[in-house]
Amino acid sequence: MAERWATSRAGLGIDLHIDPSGPGLRRGLTDALREAVRTGRLSPGTRLPSSRSLAGDLGIARNTVADAYADLVAEGWLTARQGSGTRVADRAVPAPPARPAAPGRAPGRLPYSLVPGTPDLASFPRAEWLKATRRALATAPHDAFGYGDPRGRPELRAALAEYLARVRGVRTDPERLVVCAGFAHGLRLLCDVLRARGAGTLAVESYGLDAHWDLVARAGLRTAPLPFDASGTRAQDPGDAAAVLLSPAHQFPLGGALRPERRAAVIDWARRTGGLILEDDYDGEFRYDRQAVGALQDLDPGHVVYLGTASKSLAPGLRLGWMVVPPSLVPEVTAHGAGRSVGVVEQLALAEFLTSGAYDRHVRAARLRYRRRRDALVAALAERAPDVHVTGIAAGLHAVLRLPPGTERSVVQAATWQGLAVQGLSGFRHPAADATPGDGLVVGYGTPPDHAWTSTLEALCRALP
Amino acid sequence: MAERWATSRAGLGIDLHIDPSGPGLRRGLTDALREAVRTGRLSPGTRLPSSRSLAGDLGIARNTVADAYADLVAEGWLTARQGSGTRVADRAVPAPPARPAAPGRAPGRLPYSLVPGTPDLASFPRAEWLKATRRALATAPHDAFGYGDPRGRPELRAALAEYLARVRGVRTDPERLVVCAGFAHGLRLLCDVLRARGAGTLAVESYGLDAHWDLVARAGLRTAPLPFDASGTRAQDPGDAAAVLLSPAHQFPLGGALRPERRAAVIDWARRTGGLILEDDYDGEFRYDRQAVGALQDLDPGHVVYLGTASKSLAPGLRLGWMVVPPSLVPEVTAHGAGRSVGVVEQLALAEFLTSGAYDRHVRAARLRYRRRRDALVAALAERAPDVHVTGIAAGLHAVLRLPPGTERSVVQAATWQGLAVQGLSGFRHPAADATPGDGLVVGYGTPPDHAWTSTLEALCRALP
Repeated sequence: MAERWATSRAGLGIDLHIDPSGPGLRRGLTDALREAVRTGRLSPGTRLPSSRSLAGDLGIARNTVADAYADLVAEGWLTARQGSGTRVADRAVPAPPARPAAPGRAPGRLPYSLVPGTPDLASFPRAEWLKATRRALATAPHDAFGYGDPRGRPELRAALAEYLARVRGVRTDPERLVVCAGFAHGLRLLCDVLRARGAGTLAVESYGLDAHWDLVARAGLRTAPLPFDASGTRAQDPGDAAAVLLSPAHQFPLGGALRPERRAAVIDWARRTGGLILEDDYDGEFRYDRQAVGALQDLDPGHVVYLGTASKSLAPGLRLGWMVVPPSLVPEVTAHGAGRSVGVVEQLALAEFLTSGAYDRHVRAARLRYRRRRDALVAALAERAPDVHVTGIAAGLHAVLRLPPGTERSVVQAATWQGLAVQGLSGFRHPAADATPGDGLVVGYGTPPDHAWTSTLEALCRALP
Repeated sequence: MAERWATSRAGLGIDLHIDPSGPGLRRGLTDALREAVRTGRLSPGTRLPSSRSLAGDLGIARNTVADAYADLVAEGWLTARQGSGTRVADRAVPAPPARPAAPGRAPGRLPYSLVPGTPDLASFPRAEWLKATRRALATAPHDAFGYGDPRGRPELRAALAEYLARVRGVRTDPERLVVCAGFAHGLRLLCDVLRARGAGTLAVESYGLDAHWDLVARAGLRTAPLPFDASGTRAQDPGDAAAVLLSPAHQFPLGGALRPERRAAVIDWARRTGGLILEDDYDGEFRYDRQAVGALQDLDPGHVVYLGTASKSLAPGLRLGWMVVPPSLVPEVTAHGAGRSVGVVEQLALAEFLTSGAYDRHVRAARLRYRRRRDALVAALAERAPDVHVTGIAAGLHAVLRLPPGTERSVVQAATWQGLAVQGLSGFRHPAADATPGDGLVVGYGTPPDHAWTSTLEALCRALP
């Protein structure tokens, strides 16, 4: 092919390589000329040869050159004025854009990780998910591929309403169920609604995720940490906050369940003041010592927004979450798009996953695996690190290890030397919180793949005092 | 099974049906008691029988009753106090929530539709999409199922960078490419960024979609319509706006391409003032009379955000879009989550779709089909409605039909009588625009499924003057 390249130098003053025998000749010429202008080889104001002359030079049809000129005039690279011919448009050539740094932190990857927040990603049920996707694609009505209901697909909302009633004691009809792209997306939508209602403050737990607090701040709300004592979060008096964000079934990260009298008190506050409770039920499927405590939502569906997610039960990468919202809030939440942000194939696949029983099977297997890991963690610590205590209820994918006072930083550092990424409890403290529950580690025992679990636990034990 | 139901009336004062032989007996009892409290059959303050007494009454183990009581105390339905036994918690029973009205308009569905905005949903390539999903699930690394890069999956960003350069003349490296959940999501992210930078106004075209203007307003920005004349939008003087939103390749809905000198002028404005151009390239793949005009973005990647979407080329239900942003904007756009809102399986499937050539094949076939529809529309109108003129370039999935003055409303009404949903041009006018391009219809000829196309066109012809 190389011998077929034609070069124009005479008429244009620069080399221009095109393949006159190739298909898309007009396209090739357009691209070559555009590139010459972009890189500055053809400078602003330069007059181009006539289409007849350049065509003769390149041995191609005149119309092809005329078309290419017309394309580039339409795009703004060239100008064509009666009497002055075709010229390179008279504006500065933009400097090539700098390559931005990759956003976010990029810590040196360690071989082992107990950083909490994700389930074992290697156990994502790929074959089952494909099966659900196949069925979803085979059975979806055509209009499912359109813009659809802002609450999300009706098949998924019906399946979730049934599932949440059965497993989490959440009572809802599908009309009030809103699909969202994970917890963070749901929280963002709710913050937008609160902001639009004139709210200024969202009360949060003293310990939690800075990513959530940042999100709330970006939505224009202040976060105010709730008081915290030996019995956990005191949610009953959130000051002038319009809403409180809680994780009642399993506080993240401290690992307690909200006490019955405090559940009642926060509901009373919401009723008294018209406040809203945002219930973050991120890992409600995973309780090992007893049946999970039912959702707070069921106590007063008019004042609680229940937020659930497939991020812990399946995988965060699916970006699938759901909200059960009080009836009065549905129009406001859906005004912001909500379920229209979530791909319909994923929504239908999850609906299929739920109704076929694949979800229950997967959660059951995962619960058993994580329970064994938790038991192994507790047993290993009892034997190898008697000064370290596992706190919190037997639930979820993480545990808090209480450390001797003043040792948190050195233990995290020692873990790094063992090739283990692990996070200290202090990193989860709200900057304005006055609570200080002491030194600790937040250990995400759900994180490692099965094959790495034993060596990860071993690395942890070696790092502990 | 029915004969095995046990009923307690004596101890509890109400009927309570449970199946003592069934599995999940504790669960069944808990649910029955909770339901009795929720519905008010057990009223606040009521003292429950001792666990021993109720167990005897029901013929089940005492521990089962004690466990059920404990569950309900933990959930806040019951209270247990030393000396006063177990009681129904002392708070009002919430009224059953009202069923909210379905959000959004629910017009009586007509048998035919030429409402613009969606491609033919019946032609979504389900089998090919499943194939791409299978490959994506088979080849994805485990960590793809985690939270991942806020810009989206690297596989998709690389595939899009290649595709956009080849097909739309967009030049970018994958580092500046950000995946989003469709155009509206991308626009919302950009509005949040503009707002955070202190912007107050986004200039928009005089004709467009009210859903987009609403979205901008909800993000806290004012929309100001750009002047409009016989040559289209005059974008070169957007007043004090911090950014302009344009559809340069194919103005929606009017259907013109932004003229070369106006492309140049708006770029000059952006450079002079540091303004930002948001380029909505919603249907850039579909041009029928010539090669599509390249993207504006290529003229100055430092001042233009290019927004593309799979909503017209594949289906809106996928909720897949992309932005090419100036390097300086990447950290701000990704701070708001962006690509983390989009399911990883869909992202990887689209990457596979692009790199395998399935995307090109689908677009090529769709282009041919829509071109034939457009030709059929033009031919039918020439013959049957000589007073109606099709305007705009031969592109996209819609055309504007100019109507005799004063007839728009009656034509839309006549269409309804023919069973045809169609939208008048006046519905796309920005409330603050002073432009009045006259009466017209915006005809989405891409909308009907193939089998309905001929009868839909027939219904339109019957409705026209």
